[in-house]
Amino acid sequence: MKRGSRSGATSGAPAKKRSALDESNTTTQLANLKKLRELATKQRHELSSRVTDITKLGYAKDEVTEVTVMPEEDVQSLIERTVVNCVRSLLNNKGISFEIPSRAASNQAYIPELDRNILKRDKMTTRRFNNIREVKKTAITTRVLELVHQILGKRIHITKRDLFYTDVKLFGDQQFSDAVLEDVACMLGCTRTSLNVVASEKGVVVGRLTFKDAGDLIDCSKMGMGGKAIPPFVDRISEIQSDADFILLVEKDAAFMRLAEDRFYNTYKCIILTAKGQPDVATRMFLKRLREELELPVLALVDSDPYGLKILSVYMSGSKAMSYDSASLATHGIKWLGVRPSDLDKYDIPEQCRLPMTDHDIKTGKQLLREDFIQKNPAWVKELELMLKKKKKAEIQALSSFGFQFLTEVYLPEKIKRGDWI
Amino acid sequence: MKRGSRSGATSGAPAKKRSALDESNTTTQLANLKKLRELATKQRHELSSRVTDITKLGYAKDEVTEVTVMPEEDVQSLIERTVVNCVRSLLNNKGISFEIPSRAASNQAYIPELDRNILKRDKMTTRRFNNIREVKKTAITTRVLELVHQILGKRIHITKRDLFYTDVKLFGDQQFSDAVLEDVACMLGCTRTSLNVVASEKGVVVGRLTFKDAGDLIDCSKMGMGGKAIPPFVDRISEIQSDADFILLVEKDAAFMRLAEDRFYNTYKCIILTAKGQPDVATRMFLKRLREELELPVLALVDSDPYGLKILSVYMSGSKAMSYDSASLATHGIKWLGVRPSDLDKYDIPEQCRLPMTDHDIKTGKQLLREDFIQKNPAWVKELELMLKKKKKAEIQALSSFGFQFLTEVYLPEKIKRGDWI
Repeated sequence: MKRGSRSGATSGAPAKKRSALDESNTTTQLANLKKLRELATKQRHELSSRVTDITKLGYAKDEVTEVTVMPEEDVQSLIERTVVNCVRSLLNNKGISFEIPSRAASNQAYIPELDRNILKRDKMTTRRFNNIREVKKTAITTRVLELVHQILGKRIHITKRDLFYTDVKLFGDQQFSDAVLEDVACMLGCTRTSLNVVASEKGVVVGRLTFKDAGDLIDCSKMGMGGKAIPPFVDRISEIQSDADFILLVEKDAAFMRLAEDRFYNTYKCIILTAKGQPDVATRMFLKRLREELELPVLALVDSDPYGLKILSVYMSGSKAMSYDSASLATHGIKWLGVRPSDLDKYDIPEQCRLPMTDHDIKTGKQLLREDFIQKNPAWVKELELMLKKKKKAEIQALSSFGFQFLTEVYLPEKIKRGDWI
Repeated sequence: MKRGSRSGATSGAPAKKRSALDESNTTTQLANLKKLRELATKQRHELSSRVTDITKLGYAKDEVTEVTVMPEEDVQSLIERTVVNCVRSLLNNKGISFEIPSRAASNQAYIPELDRNILKRDKMTTRRFNNIREVKKTAITTRVLELVHQILGKRIHITKRDLFYTDVKLFGDQQFSDAVLEDVACMLGCTRTSLNVVASEKGVVVGRLTFKDAGDLIDCSKMGMGGKAIPPFVDRISEIQSDADFILLVEKDAAFMRLAEDRFYNTYKCIILTAKGQPDVATRMFLKRLREELELPVLALVDSDPYGLKILSVYMSGSKAMSYDSASLATHGIKWLGVRPSDLDKYDIPEQCRLPMTDHDIKTGKQLLREDFIQKNPAWVKELELMLKKKKKAEIQALSSFGFQFLTEVYLPEKIKRGDWI
């Protein structure tokens, strides 16, 4: 669709009002959203039937390190069992040791059927107390196990920084306690958040969603324009309910603000969330839970550049650094709504709003092109190739060149009408 | 007060529970908070009676550039008046020009009586359309005036990035449209947020506070642990109500999370807020409104380092970059509760949790020592001198070395009991 020539920032924009949309438009939009939703439900069911039997994918159960979300008492029992094993080993004059899966890149793999990165168990590290090179790490591991057991018993959550400060003398540097924390999660087979150690919150959510956060009922359609901060402790969330048709995942804060102020979720029943850039663990877990419990499709609105795609991939396939935890962090089957490289011509984005890609951008783009999560989707490959051919990128904000409300009044309604996501 | 020797992270900490506090403790705490509150109310009234008569401070009214929060229709009228003046000037064959106060450092001043930075009117810049060196800036100014008039008419808010993208060709680089936006605010005499151009939201709030955000009633005591994101559009907030005794301003996210999870605001009636580091405009305006409308004292909990003090100064005196807007951004009379340099010995913070100050830290500290907002408070000078003498800094998180809940169960209750703020 070619847009007419642009005669000015807001005056020249085709600022159709929602009220002006004819009925057939609305019918098409509703039909598209219904189809999308059915697909999401189907995918969700297919996936859950597959995931339980990872052996069918050619992996033996003990070949893969997959952690799960666990209640506090289960993690406590696991720690107690680990300690009992240590004591037994000591009584047998064998000393203390821990078996930990290696989290090195060579031990990671992307599983197309699961659409996410996983951690293999090919390489295991043994950490022995009676080895001069391993004694310190073993001591740190024991101490972290003790501290985690304490906070689980108190039913409180702490940050990585808090953990570090409880024994600066032993840990020395936060990177050591952080790394051991990941080791402990892998070793016990639970997510890092199940250890009640969390990162800071970054995300916000608004829209047609209610849930309980630590017993308080939160209605995200009544959060004004600021939205609700996504809680850092996703495990304290319960009773998630919604009448939305889809989840709109937004890369950046500015677009989120526009959608929230225009109360886009009242025009199109949806839940809108953003992590304000690079997604944090809490936002990823929150999205994953919404996707699964509500069986809603997820439409993503990111910048048309390699960085936007990378952010999308972290939501979808999980980051490589936390591959052992991808099962609780990766959200399956996110649809790329926009801003896509082909949108730039389709919507006639003015030349001066398209920025030239830097050498670094192009390098990142070429790397992405080889990634499995792009390769398995031919439509994505085509878009990325177009970006690399034109060597142009654009931010979501570039849509403002047609008027400040172009995003909510024209771009998104048209996308939904044409079912334009891949 | 010297704490006993520390035998372990949590076991050795004096983890008094609130329930174990004796009655006289509670009475002292309540008395301290009452005194503090009375002082806050008194200061507030003194200040408001002074501010209205800036001439008594030796400044003529037209010597100072002070912007105020204005309703949308007032700003619109001012823009229309400015345009009418331009037309009149054109008809007189004089061409278009704007008179703008210079925002250079030499034009700024700290007013001790007001306890904030202000912008003088000593230097005015004339921006003429028929001057080859000024024509572009004049064109940008005219365009920004036009765009702001549009968004005010639509009653919507946009970000600086949105504004830039409406005319990339003319603006060229976002720094030019951003700078002109500040010029326009100074020229019209309204705050930047009154132009309905906002920055992204960063802050969160929990506690004993209710308000309306764009018509939705928000109860911050029922926000679970995630808290409520502070709205970017502070002008849409109304009906602020609270039964709190004080506002607890927290520098960092981690401490905020601890306070929110422990529901500290139920033990001590308070409102807890953080901007997660360097404060943004929305959080500063929000704090200012709470302070003034509720007449509540503000207690600050920041890291014991020059950066923590700098953050405190931005809340208190306003940043230099936005000195023209300090009246709506600066919160008067914040009390420095902790973590203060003298706390490190008083609470026997372990040596390994005190970090050596870098050369840069020491340089920043020495600069701060010369600043007016420090100099006017001898107790602050003493603390900062102590920091520079010991050359040690510590984060709020260092308190975790006595146990994860030391902050909420011991440190803050003791601070309140002893009225230990300066």
